[in-house]
Amino acid sequence: MALKAKVLYDFHSENPGEISITENELVTLFSEEELEGWLEGENSRGEAGLFPASYVEIIQDHITSSTNNNGFSSPKSKTQTPSHASYTSSDSQSQRGLGAGSGGSSFHTSQGSDDDWDDDWDDTSPAADAPQGFGSSPPLYPVTTSLPGRGSAQNQQQQQQQAKSSATVGRNLNRFSTFVKSGGEAFLLGEASAFVKDGDRICVVMGKHGPEWQEDPYPFTCTIDDPTKQTKFKGMKSYMSYGLTPTHTSIQVNRRYKHFDWLYARLVERFPVISVPHLPEKQATGRFEEDFISKRRKGLIWWMNHMTSHPVLARCDVFQHFLTCGADEKAWKQGKRKAERDELVGANFFLTISTPAVPLDLQEVESKMEGFKTFTKRMDENIVVVNATINEFAHKQMAGFKKEYQKVGQSFKLLAQAFELDQQAYSAGLNKAIAYTGDAYEAIGDYFAEQPRQDLDPISDLLDLYRGHLANFPDIIHVQKGALTKVKDCPKQEGDLHDRCNIISCATLAEIQHFHRTRVRDFRSQMQHHLRQQIGFFQKITAKLEDALQRYDDDQ
Amino acid sequence: MALKAKVLYDFHSENPGEISITENELVTLFSEEELEGWLEGENSRGEAGLFPASYVEIIQDHITSSTNNNGFSSPKSKTQTPSHASYTSSDSQSQRGLGAGSGGSSFHTSQGSDDDWDDDWDDTSPAADAPQGFGSSPPLYPVTTSLPGRGSAQNQQQQQQQAKSSATVGRNLNRFSTFVKSGGEAFLLGEASAFVKDGDRICVVMGKHGPEWQEDPYPFTCTIDDPTKQTKFKGMKSYMSYGLTPTHTSIQVNRRYKHFDWLYARLVERFPVISVPHLPEKQATGRFEEDFISKRRKGLIWWMNHMTSHPVLARCDVFQHFLTCGADEKAWKQGKRKAERDELVGANFFLTISTPAVPLDLQEVESKMEGFKTFTKRMDENIVVVNATINEFAHKQMAGFKKEYQKVGQSFKLLAQAFELDQQAYSAGLNKAIAYTGDAYEAIGDYFAEQPRQDLDPISDLLDLYRGHLANFPDIIHVQKGALTKVKDCPKQEGDLHDRCNIISCATLAEIQHFHRTRVRDFRSQMQHHLRQQIGFFQKITAKLEDALQRYDDDQ
Repeated sequence: MALKAKVLYDFHSENPGEISITENELVTLFSEEELEGWLEGENSRGEAGLFPASYVEIIQDHITSSTNNNGFSSPKSKTQTPSHASYTSSDSQSQRGLGAGSGGSSFHTSQGSDDDWDDDWDDTSPAADAPQGFGSSPPLYPVTTSLPGRGSAQNQQQQQQQAKSSATVGRNLNRFSTFVKSGGEAFLLGEASAFVKDGDRICVVMGKHGPEWQEDPYPFTCTIDDPTKQTKFKGMKSYMSYGLTPTHTSIQVNRRYKHFDWLYARLVERFPVISVPHLPEKQATGRFEEDFISKRRKGLIWWMNHMTSHPVLARCDVFQHFLTCGADEKAWKQGKRKAERDELVGANFFLTISTPAVPLDLQEVESKMEGFKTFTKRMDENIVVVNATINEFAHKQMAGFKKEYQKVGQSFKLLAQAFELDQQAYSAGLNKAIAYTGDAYEAIGDYFAEQPRQDLDPISDLLDLYRGHLANFPDIIHVQKGALTKVKDCPKQEGDLHDRCNIISCATLAEIQHFHRTRVRDFRSQMQHHLRQQIGFFQKITAKLEDALQRYDDDQ
Repeated sequence: MALKAKVLYDFHSENPGEISITENELVTLFSEEELEGWLEGENSRGEAGLFPASYVEIIQDHITSSTNNNGFSSPKSKTQTPSHASYTSSDSQSQRGLGAGSGGSSFHTSQGSDDDWDDDWDDTSPAADAPQGFGSSPPLYPVTTSLPGRGSAQNQQQQQQQAKSSATVGRNLNRFSTFVKSGGEAFLLGEASAFVKDGDRICVVMGKHGPEWQEDPYPFTCTIDDPTKQTKFKGMKSYMSYGLTPTHTSIQVNRRYKHFDWLYARLVERFPVISVPHLPEKQATGRFEEDFISKRRKGLIWWMNHMTSHPVLARCDVFQHFLTCGADEKAWKQGKRKAERDELVGANFFLTISTPAVPLDLQEVESKMEGFKTFTKRMDENIVVVNATINEFAHKQMAGFKKEYQKVGQSFKLLAQAFELDQQAYSAGLNKAIAYTGDAYEAIGDYFAEQPRQDLDPISDLLDLYRGHLANFPDIIHVQKGALTKVKDCPKQEGDLHDRCNIISCATLAEIQHFHRTRVRDFRSQMQHHLRQQIGFFQKITAKLEDALQRYDDDQ
């Protein structure tokens, strides 16, 4: 009997070798083994190819024994290093959004790659620096403290062994599902263990609208200055440096994009059910450098805003190190190494969570999760449309609208020029007034061209950031769903299982609550900003026209 | 030696058989005889064909004897009745403007044709009604009181005879030049004679800026109501009737388009150097009937405005009869017959003019005329561009701008729809506000679509009216220039010749002065109207956006 999997999320093929799959569709797998986050199989339309493993759930009934990896051939060669499932699926999601037409999501999920616009990496690479650490790529496998210091190749072998040995004890056989990779499963099965200091404890409290992250008692924000160009090696290498000034220290630190990138990788690995905001894109093609730098800075400001306003992310050690460590290179490296050796990543993250006294009702949680899944899907679809519309509107204003007003302005000036051939005294005032009206219309054309930067680009930046979050959530939902499914399979077998599932649910719902609050805050303020700008814009036009109108009175 | 003519005005061929000619170009004539206002010849590029006779001046030196009309064959058959030169050239001019791109001049020079949109002509035709009159077509030949009661065929013969007999006594051999046809030449040569009552006297006075028509001591205006549909012959025939109410009588009279048309023909024949405003177009194609009726009414209102504000036209008998004669059919026919038998048409019109005591300086007159010629040419060219631009701008606002704002509105509503999937209390206000913003943008799209009717269409209507005037002026200039040239040829020969030339110059300059004053008045008020409308429009948009902005506050 063929190996089957149920599709959890729509995936649209973007590259040769990939196939599109649709939610709830049953696909036939050629093998249950993934290659770098991808599975090979055939969809219901008979197309064969690759799709992201995290987008499907293998149907257990069909599995009689685990197949091995030998003989698995991929028509597609993926050359990048094995990467975290959430990365792979997020990336596909982003590409999907892009393909749907808005001119591109400007945020990406970075893995601390050195492939920066300034390609000079002045610190030793994390892998070399911390041989027993987890490398710059997040682990492929749930991290447990009982299995320290594995290398990537070692990992792969152990995974396969583990898959074989534990297939019969309620484990998910899909070793590459986000549930497994995030550490959710390992935690649920009680395999996580680490020492949690009080300072590392993260509280979920019961709020008016359900579980929520306990508020940061010391909230702060952080400004990002215009980047400055720095050089090293006697000018041979150059890079851009951003001055960051957090309000709780008021001391400026300088960071390069690669530092943000490194931090991002730490956060993704550290927090399985938290939506870490994506960094702005590495490279914007077809843009002038100045525009690109300005756009990236705006993206980083949004990113920073979401970091500092997240109760968990804002307080975490690695972020604080990033924000407060000065120019002392030794101190920087020390903090860097500490973060890379952090034990409370993946499965162990859940150990740090304190939940409200009363456990959540499973059915209610399930219903909330279903609702949120629908929500994110719709929001993702609709903001793609909004973004495309807004970008097109901006383009029309900068090109078409401007041109139309300028053409009208020019034609009024032509009229004035013809009228100026009549030199009689009673004609002169009118001629000037019409010429002035022509100028006014040309100015209005310029206003239209300049306006989108003020009130449409910011919306577009915001939508980009949210597309990043929306790309994170399928994995987060998947982790919670994995836990819930597991618990439902063995109803009253283990009280601990229930407790641990409750922890995952609380964290997930707290994160969802945080997402909604932030979304409402951001969209309200951005829409207000947009409308205020538009009002100012139309008032400016009105003032210009009133000015022109007055010229006709002077003429009497 | 070939017969040559100098081109006075640019003419662009519009139809097969016609050729384009350029100002100051020398063209070779195949015959000096015109056919219905057209001459046949070859331009400097070697193209052979027809061009308007009134656009050229035959060079006298080349004429050894007048050729006869026999053997003249035209590749183009003009089926309409022989028409006034100013009509022919004006018409060409109009067509030129049309071809240059604005979507059409909406004013035409009518000859009282029955070819109305309601083709029922309930009065007896003027020709049948007034056998000794001048018919509904203006005369082809200068009218002198010594040659009464000629028919059209008779005319033709007499012209040819006269051309032969008077070729040596300073007469213009081009019997079809506007100068000749308008009666200008006949008047200048002292051939005009008629009894002029005091009431018919038209005074040119010396104003601050040169000769001007004496102001109408009893100025009035006239309103035009929405037309009503009338039927006759038990509903078999229907026509539109306009209610006109002049302010000096306050009594409404009802007139049909054909009555305007008839009046127009009388005025054109009556006043050789006055620019009679063209009537709005007979038929607008591709428009809904309602739009067409509304556009024609607006055109008639402009026309009426120019009629009542012209000191000479406003006071003349035929216009007063048109405005004041009530439903008494007998009285109407009486006045109609009187107008059609009016002796003070063409050459005799100049007999009615009283000039200022001091004659004008010929050189100054010539320079003013040159300046005005340049002015009208440039104004004609430039308003074609303005009209095209404005019409395109109107179209863009009604289609493109509307669509863009509505698309933005729809995308905001999509965003609100996605957000509505989150039912939490703190989200609801934002969702409503965003949906409202979407509605606001859709409304703004509608504002853009509705606006051109308020502030661009009126400019377009005004430009149409002025294109009619500009089409009249080449003929008016031609009459004055013909007189001036004749006087310069025989410097001190005849004091009377100088006096009569002075009368023509005074009338022409008074008309030019009137044109400028009206132009400055009309364009000032129309630009003010446009700007006020635009200001109101942008204020309306601003108010809508402010309204939307408030919704975000309610949400707190």
